[in-house]
Amino acid sequence: MAVNLPELKTLPAVAGVRLGTACAQIKQDERDDLALFELASGSTSAAVFTRNAFCAAPVEIARQHLATTEPRYWLINSGNANAGTGESGRTAALDCCAAVAHEQKCSDREVLPFSTGVIGETLPVDKIRAAIPTAAKNLDANHWLEAAHAIMTTDTQAKGASRQIQIAGQTITITGIAKGSGMIHPNMATMLAFIATDAPVAEPLLSVGLKAAMNVSFNRITVDGDTSTNDACLLVATGQADLPLIEHSHSTEFKALQQALVEVSQELAHAIVRDGEGATKFISIEVAEGRDEQECLKVAYTIAQSPLVKTALFASDPNWGRILAAIGRAPIAELDIQAVRVFLGDVCIVDDGGRATSYTEEQGQAVMDEKEIVIKVLLGRGEVSNTVWTCDFSYDYVKINAEYRT
Amino acid sequence: MAVNLPELKTLPAVAGVRLGTACAQIKQDERDDLALFELASGSTSAAVFTRNAFCAAPVEIARQHLATTEPRYWLINSGNANAGTGESGRTAALDCCAAVAHEQKCSDREVLPFSTGVIGETLPVDKIRAAIPTAAKNLDANHWLEAAHAIMTTDTQAKGASRQIQIAGQTITITGIAKGSGMIHPNMATMLAFIATDAPVAEPLLSVGLKAAMNVSFNRITVDGDTSTNDACLLVATGQADLPLIEHSHSTEFKALQQALVEVSQELAHAIVRDGEGATKFISIEVAEGRDEQECLKVAYTIAQSPLVKTALFASDPNWGRILAAIGRAPIAELDIQAVRVFLGDVCIVDDGGRATSYTEEQGQAVMDEKEIVIKVLLGRGEVSNTVWTCDFSYDYVKINAEYRT
Repeated sequence: MAVNLPELKTLPAVAGVRLGTACAQIKQDERDDLALFELASGSTSAAVFTRNAFCAAPVEIARQHLATTEPRYWLINSGNANAGTGESGRTAALDCCAAVAHEQKCSDREVLPFSTGVIGETLPVDKIRAAIPTAAKNLDANHWLEAAHAIMTTDTQAKGASRQIQIAGQTITITGIAKGSGMIHPNMATMLAFIATDAPVAEPLLSVGLKAAMNVSFNRITVDGDTSTNDACLLVATGQADLPLIEHSHSTEFKALQQALVEVSQELAHAIVRDGEGATKFISIEVAEGRDEQECLKVAYTIAQSPLVKTALFASDPNWGRILAAIGRAPIAELDIQAVRVFLGDVCIVDDGGRATSYTEEQGQAVMDEKEIVIKVLLGRGEVSNTVWTCDFSYDYVKINAEYRT
Repeated sequence: MAVNLPELKTLPAVAGVRLGTACAQIKQDERDDLALFELASGSTSAAVFTRNAFCAAPVEIARQHLATTEPRYWLINSGNANAGTGESGRTAALDCCAAVAHEQKCSDREVLPFSTGVIGETLPVDKIRAAIPTAAKNLDANHWLEAAHAIMTTDTQAKGASRQIQIAGQTITITGIAKGSGMIHPNMATMLAFIATDAPVAEPLLSVGLKAAMNVSFNRITVDGDTSTNDACLLVATGQADLPLIEHSHSTEFKALQQALVEVSQELAHAIVRDGEGATKFISIEVAEGRDEQECLKVAYTIAQSPLVKTALFASDPNWGRILAAIGRAPIAELDIQAVRVFLGDVCIVDDGGRATSYTEEQGQAVMDEKEIVIKVLLGRGEVSNTVWTCDFSYDYVKINAEYRT
């Protein structure tokens, strides 16, 4: 089960956004697998898409539509990624857009398609087309929770987050949902996130804000910025709140909104890690005293991706040697191992090139027994720090490695 | 159990090399965990060591000794890596060298120490010192098999390989042993390999030959050239065969010897993959039609490290979409996905950006049901090719992902 991830009970509505769901029976017929977002006219949008060379057909179409037209609908199906499907996949994605446009009397280009699920199988357009009227009929501002469930694939829990802040005497809401198909390295499976606010935000600034928020949330649970064929994060500002347009990055209004966006994005990104397949621990890896962001991230990701470290975390084994070995093989130049210090929680485990003299196994064990663990690495060569989040490796794969030491 | 790895029954002796083993009870008392190689006076040596910044104490000492003195002894212990042990670790490694030197009446610097096992624990020098006389007493040219067993850690089978070739009417032998502690990515655990030939080879050429052989064997089961704290590969040429010194890289003699060295190195490297923990399949990933070696390797390693691909391989699921997604996120510039073709064995599974029109699941399934699988990727943009070897991911970690599609 997911690590310290409470069941999602309710999500505040965002003025200007209505959501509808339906069961298109794409892979199963027990739950809704189609979600439709309706965005108020006059909304501004920002998006970040996968950088995978083999991006899926819906990603191509969504990019094209966004480039020319302000979107009014987001259509998301789970159960089939419509990826690796070539020209017929693009036609299928366009057909889905056309079906929404026909139902809602808008332009095809005002619809953005998203798909998540198995790669390389033909998208069952007929099933989706048949289910769209149902989704359209139940469009409602209070259907965030239903949408959060409809976009799930192997997720064991629905994922959502929201913040409400005061700007110029107005209550501004920012609400988002996400799905991550639960791979231990989320970059290898599809992550989708859909976030909305009723604040009025000028488009260029909205994109700046989304990218900045991604860089401290979804892109910090992703390895080296790599992404799957279908990853996408969408942000819409409906402008329904009674506020002047937010258009300057140094304004108090933008800073307050950005802070809330970062919090929502981090909560969603952390939820994906907490629901990582087989995860039993939630791990924060903080690398500080680096020369630049890149070297902090390289060290953090090398630790975060090490099966030996992750199996030790599962086994609650304070095997600091594995952390040290991971740091040592991180691709950064001229690392002085004598200057590196490593902490498990508040416990110093490594300094001066080896086990800290003050360290005892009991101290390390106490930290490792927790479900939430912070690994902190001080590189001793600069002022920059950065944080990455991951989970442990569990089950038999772990069993083999976890038992090696004992 | 290991994939198609026959039990090691015998290994041909190499004139000028004697081996002895003993049980030092470092981690257990049931089998030998100490191996001593004695190399004839006048031998030449070459070595490749880990590039990990946190290299282990014995690696530091071995490098220092090699830099000034022709080695006469290699001392290897399993059960303890003597890594992350700081200054006391270096003293321990030196103490081991001194113990051999005292027993065999040679210089400390003529002894190279190697350790493999748990990181960060104090090496029990007293136990090793006490066992060295036993190892020295049973030095024998026919003890290769015993040495192959003594250097094992989590290996389930001993690993050895040998070739005999004719050069100028003489039979030349090249015999090696290796251990890999069975991690699925061998770069994250210690690999040790010790290879010997009775051919006479000049030292600079011996190093050239070893590096070239490593680049098509051990370095092709290693991710991005990364290595553990203790990795080492040693090659000695005793010169006991009655041949003129081999000193030119273009000579027929060197080419014949090099070919045999490559074969022995590949057989040992493959044995480590075949004995990867939980491995049920042996996978060759060939990337061809690349612009240069680096881009071929990037694509090959991205596939080889993808848990999604590896779990599909375990499940015998011809899930070509996962292979395609891995290729798409490989860090190479301007990849034209339309030009990429992917084969499973002889079956074309991907062309023109999607599933090959000629492809059927039955064809893919037939290849996937085999224990040895070749994934071939044609990038369609150059003339260079390269191959990497890996194994599948099995057990519960796999179970979760393997069941996602079915």
